[in-house]
Amino acid sequence: MTSRGFVSLVGAGPGDPELLTLRAVARLREADLVLYDALAGREALSLAPRARWFYVGKRARRRSIAQESIERLMIRAALRGERVVRLKCGDPFVLGRGGEEALALARAGIPYEVVPGVTSAVAAPAMAGIPVTHRGLSTAFVVVSGHAEAAYAPLLSTLPPGAATVVVLMGLANRAEIADLLLASGWPARTPAAVVLDATHESAASWTGTLSGLGACALPDERPESAGVLVVGEVVSLAAAIAAVPRERQSAPAA
Amino acid sequence: MTSRGFVSLVGAGPGDPELLTLRAVARLREADLVLYDALAGREALSLAPRARWFYVGKRARRRSIAQESIERLMIRAALRGERVVRLKCGDPFVLGRGGEEALALARAGIPYEVVPGVTSAVAAPAMAGIPVTHRGLSTAFVVVSGHAEAAYAPLLSTLPPGAATVVVLMGLANRAEIADLLLASGWPARTPAAVVLDATHESAASWTGTLSGLGACALPDERPESAGVLVVGEVVSLAAAIAAVPRERQSAPAA
Repeated sequence: MTSRGFVSLVGAGPGDPELLTLRAVARLREADLVLYDALAGREALSLAPRARWFYVGKRARRRSIAQESIERLMIRAALRGERVVRLKCGDPFVLGRGGEEALALARAGIPYEVVPGVTSAVAAPAMAGIPVTHRGLSTAFVVVSGHAEAAYAPLLSTLPPGAATVVVLMGLANRAEIADLLLASGWPARTPAAVVLDATHESAASWTGTLSGLGACALPDERPESAGVLVVGEVVSLAAAIAAVPRERQSAPAA
Repeated sequence: MTSRGFVSLVGAGPGDPELLTLRAVARLREADLVLYDALAGREALSLAPRARWFYVGKRARRRSIAQESIERLMIRAALRGERVVRLKCGDPFVLGRGGEEALALARAGIPYEVVPGVTSAVAAPAMAGIPVTHRGLSTAFVVVSGHAEAAYAPLLSTLPPGAATVVVLMGLANRAEIADLLLASGWPARTPAAVVLDATHESAASWTGTLSGLGACALPDERPESAGVLVVGEVVSLAAAIAAVPRERQSAPAA
């Protein structure tokens, strides 16, 4: 039965289980083991009735499971002939170490696939009414990791002001440093900016203002770093006019 | 019954119907009218049994339907009390004029929502084994429209070489100009580059090489412009080691 072992690196989307893809649901349904991250999976538990679920994301104030351990878990289960779903927030290949996991599986000779997901880099701004591109305002966007200066500074210190909409993932805690960097690079202080929290969740919230206010903006409450998306660029000005949230969360239209 | 009219701007993903989201499928199922683009929808016909389907994408050698006409169609149907799905390739807010359609609906007082989709900007490279970010190679990526110089030149002529993975949508016909622009901006000629065609379709194909070969690369056959995605950056070098295609398209593993 070892030939049956298989790993699916699956994008879970931004959190709302309705934004799972059909293929993601099909893989969960037949999974023997699901290794899942912080933002993905809890609501999806009922979709994988046969599976053992194992949490491998970051915990507040605890060290996360080493990447090598996650890879070892996947490989061992596949070698036992199991169907493994590695359920990752957003898309597996957007700042999610999915490439590393794919390489580890390839090196170990384990058959695997990648199931793309809806990335928070686009969906989080969208749910706040912000299209990352818009005719006349922006024909490009950049997505960058904000978790450390070494990750965001090379791009954000050199990107010409206004050349693209800037989307920062995992940068909530560094928003003051990121705003300062853009301002020092010549981005106008009045450039529209937003923070989108827990997009697609019931607890979703957002702040909009300008780049000069981004660093010190007051957020509704403390959130884990990964659940906040920063957006800087003229497209943020559309948030006032576009209300894109799902039908179920809108009040009934007047008859 | 006019209060029932509603428009859903729905991302159809890169083409494979298995990459539709659950919410996209739910909206199709109850749709009265589906307005769809070139790459989206044909395989999804069976998912919208009640709906009239109306093609509003570009046709070879014919002018596409004016954007205003699409918006008028949506608004009129919603005012008649219909559930309208505007099914758009990829994600509605990634170079898809979704923002314009949302604004038109808002101005007309029509209730609407945005259903994010899997964007080709991430999924097409993924299916060719290219993660747009990868630890040690890239912590950022840019997505830019390649349909006209005015759309891509401001960013690509100023982006520092190697600062981010470059993903160009709708740029197949301009790949020589785009490669020349990056070379002129100082990107090394040996920078890995790829063209991904018809990602997630049965007809999927890709070319990988270097930036110096991108402009003149021979492609398997003529494809419509919108079905080609260009990728430039060190992450393209991973394509040789990562095979990410769906399980169904892989040969059976050795027992």
